Parts: sequence; C-alpha cells; structure tokens
Amino acid sequence: MMLPSLVVAVIYREGFATMAGFVISALLCFLAGLLLAGRKPEQQNFYALEGLVFASVIWMLLSIFGSLPFLLSGHVHSFIDALFESTSGFTTTGASVLGNVEDLPHSLLFWRSFTLLIGGMGMLVFVLRFMPQFGHKGLYIMRAELPGPYSGKVESRVSSSIHLLYVIYLSMTALLVVFLAAGGVPLFDSFLLAFGAAGTGGFGIKENNLAHYASNYVQMVMATGMMVFGMNFNFFYLIAVGKWRQVRKSEELRWYLGIIAVSVALISLQLFPLYDSISRLLQDVFFTVTSVISTTAYMTVDIRSWPTFSRVVLLILMFSGAMSGSSTSGFKVARMAVFAKTIRQEIRHAINPSRNVPIQFEGHPLDKNTQRSIIYYFVCYFSVFVALLLLLSPFAKNFSGAFSAVIATLNNIGHGLDLLGPSLDYKELPQAAKLIMTIAMVMGRLEIFPVLVLFSPSTYRKT
Amino acid sequence: MMLPSLVVAVIYREGFATMAGFVISALLCFLAGLLLAGRKPEQQNFYALEGLVFASVIWMLLSIFGSLPFLLSGHVHSFIDALFESTSGFTTTGASVLGNVEDLPHSLLFWRSFTLLIGGMGMLVFVLRFMPQFGHKGLYIMRAELPGPYSGKVESRVSSSIHLLYVIYLSMTALLVVFLAAGGVPLFDSFLLAFGAAGTGGFGIKENNLAHYASNYVQMVMATGMMVFGMNFNFFYLIAVGKWRQVRKSEELRWYLGIIAVSVALISLQLFPLYDSISRLLQDVFFTVTSVISTTAYMTVDIRSWPTFSRVVLLILMFSGAMSGSSTSGFKVARMAVFAKTIRQEIRHAINPSRNVPIQFEGHPLDKNTQRSIIYYFVCYFSVFVALLLLLSPFAKNFSGAFSAVIATLNNIGHGLDLLGPSLDYKELPQAAKLIMTIAMVMGRLEIFPVLVLFSPSTYRKT
Repeated sequence: MMLPSLVVAVIYREGFATMAGFVISALLCFLAGLLLAGRKPEQQNFYALEGLVFASVIWMLLSIFGSLPFLLSGHVHSFIDALFESTSGFTTTGASVLGNVEDLPHSLLFWRSFTLLIGGMGMLVFVLRFMPQFGHKGLYIMRAELPGPYSGKVESRVSSSIHLLYVIYLSMTALLVVFLAAGGVPLFDSFLLAFGAAGTGGFGIKENNLAHYASNYVQMVMATGMMVFGMNFNFFYLIAVGKWRQVRKSEELRWYLGIIAVSVALISLQLFPLYDSISRLLQDVFFTVTSVISTTAYMTVDIRSWPTFSRVVLLILMFSGAMSGSSTSGFKVARMAVFAKTIRQEIRHAINPSRNVPIQFEGHPLDKNTQRSIIYYFVCYFSVFVALLLLLSPFAKNFSGAFSAVIATLNNIGHGLDLLGPSLDYKELPQAAKLIMTIAMVMGRLEIFPVLVLFSPSTYRKT
Repeated sequence: MMLPSLVVAVIYREGFATMAGFVISALLCFLAGLLLAGRKPEQQNFYALEGLVFASVIWMLLSIFGSLPFLLSGHVHSFIDALFESTSGFTTTGASVLGNVEDLPHSLLFWRSFTLLIGGMGMLVFVLRFMPQFGHKGLYIMRAELPGPYSGKVESRVSSSIHLLYVIYLSMTALLVVFLAAGGVPLFDSFLLAFGAAGTGGFGIKENNLAHYASNYVQMVMATGMMVFGMNFNFFYLIAVGKWRQVRKSEELRWYLGIIAVSVALISLQLFPLYDSISRLLQDVFFTVTSVISTTAYMTVDIRSWPTFSRVVLLILMFSGAMSGSSTSGFKVARMAVFAKTIRQEIRHAINPSRNVPIQFEGHPLDKNTQRSIIYYFVCYFSVFVALLLLLSPFAKNFSGAFSAVIATLNNIGHGLDLLGPSLDYKELPQAAKLIMTIAMVMGRLEIFPVLVLFSPSTYRKT
C-alpha cells in the first residue's frame, strides 16, 4: 500500500530521505507480515470475542505501521504525532496535527490521503462482511433489513461480492478524480480530494481547505461526491446489477435524503439575511451539510460565523452520520430512524400500556432484539462520550472546546464546533490528549464495542 | 396556600396593593375550586392516559394560578414573566426573571419560595403515590425495589403514610429553619432558605446568592440540608419507625454518597492550587456538589472561574440528579446505577453472547422490563433535550449558552454552566424563549412523558 506513495516521490523527484522513508516502512511491513505468516494458528475457528479483539488490534497495528512513513521521512518528529495522523487517516477522521501542509512533500500528502482510501475500503468490508458474523448485534440491522448482496441466501457469493465492492468503490473514486480534474483541479489534488471524499475523512491539503477551489462546479462535484459516498454501498451493487427498484424502496435512503433536505432548508432560512446570492447560499449550505453528515469535514466556509441554531443543526448531523453500509461514522441514519420511531412507540405505549405494536422499518416489523441492541448501543456510545469528555476536559479551554474535541474524534469528523472553521488546531494539544483522541478515533471507527472489549479485564479471564 | 404570604405582608406592613394582590389571587383560586367541585365527574375510574394528562394539566394550572400574586401585586408586569417565575417555583427549578430581588416586598419573596415548598411536597406525593399507579414504568423501580412504606402489601396504609410523609417533610424543613436561625441567619431568610433546600429549588433571595451568608456554619448546614433533601423520603419514614437497617442496606444510598464523595475529591484535587485553606476548599466544593446534585442551585462561589474538568464533573451531576423518591429532578441515581450496570452487561454480552445474566440492583436481579424502561426513558429524555436545544438555540449567543439553558430548565436546576455564577440572567431573554423554558421546566419536573402525552395528537383520538 505504501508503493504508490513511493511512485509519487519518484515522479516529483523528492529527496532521498523521503523515498528511503517509504522503502524502509514498506520493508518493515513486509517483514512483520512474513513473520506472522510463518506462524501456524493453533485453532482455526474463532468466535465473537476473538473477532472483536482482532478488529481493534488490526486497526491499531494498521495505525502504528501507517505512522512509519511520517516518522522515517523525517517530517514528523514525535511518534504520538505520527500515530495521531496515521490513525486519523485509517479511521477516516481527517483531523491533523501537521502544520503548513502545503510545505510537505507530495508523497507524504499522498500517503496521508491514501490512508483515508484504505480506511474507507477496509471499513466497508468490515461492516458489510465481518461485523455481523462476529456478533456485533447493532449491525445486524443493515444485513437483515436492507436489500443487498449479503441478505438472504447468497452467502456463497460473498467473496466474489467483496471483489465487486472493491471494484465499485475504486471506480467511483476514479470517477470523482475525473470529474474534479475536468473542472480544472490539478490532477494530484484531484486524487487527494477524491480519496478524502471516498473515505469520508477529508484531510485538508491547502491552508484554507476546500475554499481554495473557488469554482462552483468543483464545490458542487465534491458536495455530491460526499453525499454519494455517505450512501449504503449495497445500493451501488444493486444498481450495477440493474435492481433500481430495491434502491428506490429503501426507507433509510429516504430518511438520509430527507435529513439532508431539511437541514439545508433550516440553515438556509437562518443564513438568508447574510447572503446576497441565493445560489451561493444554497451551495455553501449544501456543501457543509453533506460534508458534516458524511463526517468528511471538508470546509468551504468558516462556520464559526454561523449563528448558534445552524451550528446545533450541524451538531445533530455530526451525531447522526450518514447511512449504514457506508464508510462514514457516527450513529448512522438507520439507527436514527429506529431511534425516532422508538420514541413515538414509547409515547403511544404511555398513552395505552396494553398496546404493543412493533415498529416498522424497511417495510417489515422490526425485531425486538434489533431495536433493543440499537438503543443499548446508543447508551454505551453516550457513556463513552461522557467518559471522553471528562478525560479531555483538563486539556480544553472551555466546555465547547472539550465537547468539540470528543465529537470530532469519536465520530470521526475531524473538526469540532467552536474552535473550528476549516480545521481544528490539534497540534497545540499535549501528547496525552493526542493519545486519548487516537483511541477515541479507533473507538468511533469500530463502533465502540471492539475497543471496550479489548480494554475489558474479563476478556482475558479463562472461561 | 397564599394565606401565609398575606400574613407576611401584614407583619411587614406592606402596601395595600400587595395585600390586595394576595387576597384577590386567593379568592380567584377559591372560586375556580368551587366551580370545579360543583361538577360531578361522569366517570369515577380513570387510567394511565388520564393520569398523565391530569398530571401535566395540574402542574400547568398550578403555575398559572401561582403567577397571580406576582401580577396582581403589580410587581411583575408581563404574564409570561409571572408564569415563568411561578412555574420555576412549583417545578422546584429556582430560575428567576426578577431583577433586584432585594427590593421586592417580603410577602412576594415569601410566596416565591413557598411555591418551592409546595412543589417539592406535591412532587413527593406524586412520585411516591400516584406515578406508579398511573403506569409510568420508569418509576416502578423505586416502588418495587426500594424498602419503604409503599412496597409490598401495605397499600391500605397508603393514605396514613402520605400524612406521615407530610409531617416528616415539614418537620425537616422546620428543623432546617431552626438550625439556620441558630447560626444567626434572620428568621425570615431562614424560612426562605429552608424552603429552597426542602424543595431543592433554591431561589436566590440576595443579589450575591448564598455567598451573602459568609458563616461557615450556615454554609455547612445548608450543604448538609441539600444533601439530606436529595435522599429518598422513604428513608425518613423507615428511620421514624426504627428500621435503620433497611436504610443502611440501600444500594442507591451508597451510590448517592459515593458519587458525592468522588465528585468532591476530583474537583478538590483540581482546585487545590487555587486555595490557601483546605477546609475552605472542601467546604466550597462540598456545598457546590450537594447544591448541583440536588438540583437546588444555591451558590457560594462563582463557578465560572473553575476549570473545565471541574465543570464537566458538575455537568454530570446536573444530569444525574439525586435519589429517586426525593423532590429533586434529573435522571436520578437509581437510574444512573442501572445505566452503568447495563453498560457493563453489554460489554460482557459482547465478549460472550451466550451469557445472559440479569443485572443486580438493591440485592435482587433486576426485571428486564424495568431495565428496558429506564434505558428507553433515557432515550426519550435525550431526544427531548436535543429538541429543546434546537428550539432555544436561536435565542442563545453560543452553543454553551443554549446547552446551559436546556439543562437548567429541563433538569430543574435553575442555573447553567457558562453564563452562570450565582444566577443565570433569564430576564434578558425574549418572551418566546421564556415560554419554551416554562414548558421545559414542567417536562423535567414530571419526567417528560406526561407532557409528551399531553401534546401528542393520538391522546385525543377515540380508541
């Protein structure tokens, strides 16, 4: 995976140190792989517990190995900084501790954004293929309720479907590169921006982030791209095999588009007096809304100047995230929908306790256990949020700062609410805070449980 | 209930307008009661739905009638302001829109604090007697799990127990008056402070709130008073009948005292460098912690100067509130304990999906439905919180301001996190914001469902 960055280093004739950094990093990965591959596993079958531990360890190892090019090229001096940057990439967060990104060598910028592409792709496979099998209950819903290659009796087609998924993901990324380049974005930048949108991570590659590309066309292409990459990847499979109808029937899709439409309308109404041009207003708001709901965090405007109500709307989008089965983070629209229906159900139950109608989702009555696991997942998410708020608050100037730091990392957004504008200044934070945030990013990426299990003493007790 | 205030007006020889205000208000209440009492109900039995609607309507009527003395005495000119103040009293919130409280007539200050006493007492009866019967599931836990006059087969003793409850509540308030007066607090102030602590509402009666009473003795008496009024009132019943052992066994009590101890320790550790005297430090922190966890909101220090971590600890206490079966608001310690145990259970379940051990609370396995209703209550609470955040954010200068306004009213605290210090300046807010906050206070007081049901269209559909 590091070789493309090496190619970039060669193309741009970057110094020996930078190239050597990538070569040595790649060799170290290869060696580690060789050592591990030589060891025969004692047991072939493994269970939920091993799956969860496996997932957290993999993501952490990925981040550690991914930090090597930053360190070995000599451009990042602290291991924690390199780890933060690499974790932020693989978890598709997009938070950065690097200053003056425009001065970094092309190869390193390429590697940084390439980790987003890898992270996004890995996550898709993880979500769509492995997680349900490993007993992560909250995700069953995506598998059981949504039309797609893995629902029903198509298990035998799974490995070919994963190949197809790779092809779709990479083709869509390539398509975005073409669209951007066609709009006059330099080819190198087009690649990096497309990686950012595909992985829904959005590392800024210019000091003023996406505002650098002032063209309306480019901004609308990026906004649309982020919205599309926030959709369930099963849809693209279904479209590829000609099953449009199933996509049109998706309830989660309607919620997703509905949330985007309502958010754009609400924010535009409030910002209306601040803008001369309605098309400019709608473009800025649409871009920001898709950027936030997809947890990408590219920015064209400084949202610090937006009034509180608009920022609270964005806050809700940060929590929600986009659709299940996408590379985005957050609570996911499907869960939000079940959440909303649960509240309605609870009110009805209070009105008439003998009434006990299950809620409907995606055209079917929702299984009580699925509903329960979604609600209980939320409770765990909320508790982890509060715990991280406590842990990070000693490093924050005020409550908003601490809150921003938690939501930016735990929801893999990359930027917060208050400090921010195009980018949050993580590099000023002490090492301890960066380390906590690194763990928060992995937690957010893997939907909390794998990391909680990894750190839980009872995991290591013999049963 | 308005007559004691009239007596105060007579004692302090206040103007005719003020006295007339109380007399007319009392007469209007009497007339309204007479009219209602004359109407025979068509149906004698009523169900969960009627119970919930009844509760919200009662609390709103109480607030409307309670606002009359403010209006008719001529000291408050806007109905919304008077309603806000009265609702804030009956819901034991303690938020105030009145400026220059020290210039108000004694009788009006007395009435304002007396509403806290009435609200606290009414709430106790409501919680301990009516709510479980009316099917409010979240509260079954208090009834089913805790030792007390209403558990088991003592239903026949209910009405005599309510009388005993009144006696205990009023005796404890009287005791607090005696302790305060003994410490040199003027008798009038002693009454008002005791009402504030008993109702856990805490209207400030001096410009600089409780810092006005500089004596260490007085501050410690108040802190202890607030802590005691945050306890389950069943305990005092049990102590009165000599059943100390049952109180000692209470798990919720241990959680409550544990949370207070840990909070005091954490905050003191952070504030340590800012204080010269350890006893002064501990006193200030203990006072603030008990004031916040009991949702009373008396203040001796300006917590705006406290660092972020300490304020996040206080934020958690605001959410938690004190014990079930007390006159405090918030999520309640019993629910917090179940919440924490649920998370542990979920992690264990992720580690070993076949394992399905119910959690233990108060020495017994917790019924699955009780656990479910606590978790689902939290989800509804959280959603209402977010909805209010959206509704109030247009009136707030920033995110912290909006957040403070919601938690201060929905959790019946009376002051927030950012704007605050001894008191939050509600009087600057527009009328619309005050009205939303008025509804939020009633929602918080009645634990959301009654008000949601009142505003739900399906309540009025024929079934």
